Amino acid sequence: TGVAMMKFKSPPVNSLSLEFLTEFSISLEKLENNRACRGVIITSAVPKIFSSGLDITEMCGKSVEHYTEFWRAVQEMWLRLYGSNMVTVAAVNGSSPAGGCLVALSCDYRIMAENPKFSIGLNEAQLGIVAPFWFKDTFVNVVGHRIAERSLQLGSLHPAPEAHKLGLVDELVPEEKLMEKAAAVMAQWLALPDHARQLTKTMMRKAVLDRLVAHREEDIKNFITFVSKESIQKSLRMYMEMLKKRK
Amino acid sequence: TGVAMMKFKSPPVNSLSLEFLTEFSISLEKLENNRACRGVIITSAVPKIFSSGLDITEMCGKSVEHYTEFWRAVQEMWLRLYGSNMVTVAAVNGSSPAGGCLVALSCDYRIMAENPKFSIGLNEAQLGIVAPFWFKDTFVNVVGHRIAERSLQLGSLHPAPEAHKLGLVDELVPEEKLMEKAAAVMAQWLALPDHARQLTKTMMRKAVLDRLVAHREEDIKNFITFVSKESIQKSLRMYMEMLKKRK
Amino acid sequence: TGVAMMKFKSPPVNSLSLEFLTEFSISLEKLENNRACRGVIITSAVPKIFSSGLDITEMCGKSVEHYTEFWRAVQEMWLRLYGSNMVTVAAVNGSSPAGGCLVALSCDYRIMAENPKFSIGLNEAQLGIVAPFWFKDTFVNVVGHRIAERSLQLGSLHPAPEAHKLGLVDELVPEEKLMEKAAAVMAQWLALPDHARQLTKTMMRKAVLDRLVAHREEDIKNFITFVSKESIQKSLRMYMEMLKKRK
Repeated sequence: TGVAMMKFKSPPVNSLSLEFLTEFSISLEKLENNRACRGVIITSAVPKIFSSGLDITEMCGKSVEHYTEFWRAVQEMWLRLYGSNMVTVAAVNGSSPAGGCLVALSCDYRIMAENPKFSIGLNEAQLGIVAPFWFKDTFVNVVGHRIAERSLQLGSLHPAPEAHKLGLVDELVPEEKLMEKAAAVMAQWLALPDHARQLTKTMMRKAVLDRLVAHREEDIKNFITFVSKESIQKSLRMYMEMLKKRK
Repeated sequence: TGVAMMKFKSPPVNSLSLEFLTEFSISLEKLENNRACRGVIITSAVPKIFSSGLDITEMCGKSVEHYTEFWRAVQEMWLRLYGSNMVTVAAVNGSSPAGGCLVALSCDYRIMAENPKFSIGLNEAQLGIVAPFWFKDTFVNVVGHRIAERSLQLGSLHPAPEAHKLGLVDELVPEEKLMEKAAAVMAQWLALPDHARQLTKTMMRKAVLDRLVAHREEDIKNFITFVSKESIQKSLRMYMEMLKKRK
Repeated sequence: TGVAMMKFKSPPVNSLSLEFLTEFSISLEKLENNRACRGVIITSAVPKIFSSGLDITEMCGKSVEHYTEFWRAVQEMWLRLYGSNMVTVAAVNGSSPAGGCLVALSCDYRIMAENPKFSIGLNEAQLGIVAPFWFKDTFVNVVGHRIAERSLQLGSLHPAPEAHKLGLVDELVPEEKLMEKAAAVMAQWLALPDHARQLTKTMMRKAVLDRLVAHREEDIKNFITFVSKESIQKSLRMYMEMLKKRK
């Protein structure tokens, strides 16, 4: 049918580790270069979680070289996904904080299971960190400046119904109907001639993509400076302790 | 009363041909220079259609000189209408795809007949073509980035109620009340002192107008390159055949 | 509690005079430099009015030097408030036209008394004047381009329920619950770590702040040229007469 299905399966919470990001980017690249593939549905094979976002262990107590490699992999994933020529549909079948939310925001369409226990948002501020400017740009392009400003400052995780009301996701469906709906939406988008649709997508997203490309090394440096601070290392360690205890 | 009425009357579907666009721009220029005229209501004298958009026969099998002249006329119409000092109200009394939608989007206020059979949208992608960047900019200024991105990629034609919900039109009224309502809205806008209103309008629209002015020749070249492609000529010819058969 | 309360008390209508603006900026600066202060709630001690906006007597029949000093004070107030590192909550307990609306728009969150007799908006166009570009930028960041374009051109004063619907204010509460609600909202925002929240706020607002900083002297010159026109002086005098008679 020309549609690929990508199922995140990295238990317990689909953290975006360096390895995960690298595989994700390679998979996207392969699909992109496969002329038979016109669209990809992204979902999770792990119950209750779409993706928990960037893997904090990659940011804790590692070398500058490691931070550089990790951050470049995060950028690479986003550049490929946000700039993909394929139709990209996120079937958000669980919670999706921070980097997980970025993955969903980077798709062309977001369908979420209508379970109010599932939440989504760029909650970086809650952890004492700041979402990078291109996370913010992607968010503003979806929900507008005002909603983004408030949500980013509060580090809000929006339960599915609220996320839908804010425009963060396009549609809610019962969880058992999620894949069926994703396939139907994909079919609707694939009914369009590829070339015109792709050029239109590029026209809409190019300014924001170009901005990261132009500031990529600077963005890596910022990340390293930030993550190397003792205060940040401390709060990340505390956060990891908390996560461990929660289990 | 200082209000002009402009009724599109080029049956069967008010296509924006070179001749139509030239007359439209000249009429706008005359009204603009007429100090007695402070506002213009734009509507259609053809039942069920506001305007079907750019005349495809102007883009099929013509010379580069013709394409150049045609595209410059499209630009000229938009620069005059979007940048008009007059209050411009679109009374959308029929369907309004592509260039017809652009005309409505370029006005200060859009009232549409609340007939769900009438639809409006920038549906270029459906025909395998891409809306120019200034169509997109005008659209984004009305409905915001997210709605524009989805609608342009899908080449959506929104039925009147949906168009209203998305903010593409400001108000729906029963068809028989359309002109009455347009006159009332015009009176409300004309209650403001012209000078302050005009400067405010310029402040809101200048960035987008300037962008086309700065890239006008480049935009013409892009159009010619695009329309000269055999694949595009083929799909435009097929589209015209389909339209003929439909009649 | 780390929260300051700022109550405008300059009867009869909390006009933003040169003196008022200077005191306002100094107070903001003091709070900003006070490490114990993390947030400020701005409200009015004058019944039925939050602030009536810029004091027109400062713009009538004064010297170029006075106009310069006055306009610089308006800019200064906005630069401090819109760029504040503190959490800023506007408790809008009365009408808030023009500059009063700007004060509310510059805060992080706006709660308004749900009294339909109270209205808010950038109504400059009604007085024959044009809102400066940075008033417009602040407005667009809150309500988006389309709503701002229409509201600014019409010089609309939106009754509280309409202002809420448009997103101009975030929440309506009964007047007697206003301060309680403001305190609750403040507590919610202060639950976030200051540093991440502040950097996020800067990321969202810097482009618009930088634009005034880059054009500050030009903006002062524009104001002086504008306010020195005999036609503008005349309409401001007429407006003041009207206000006097209304009393």
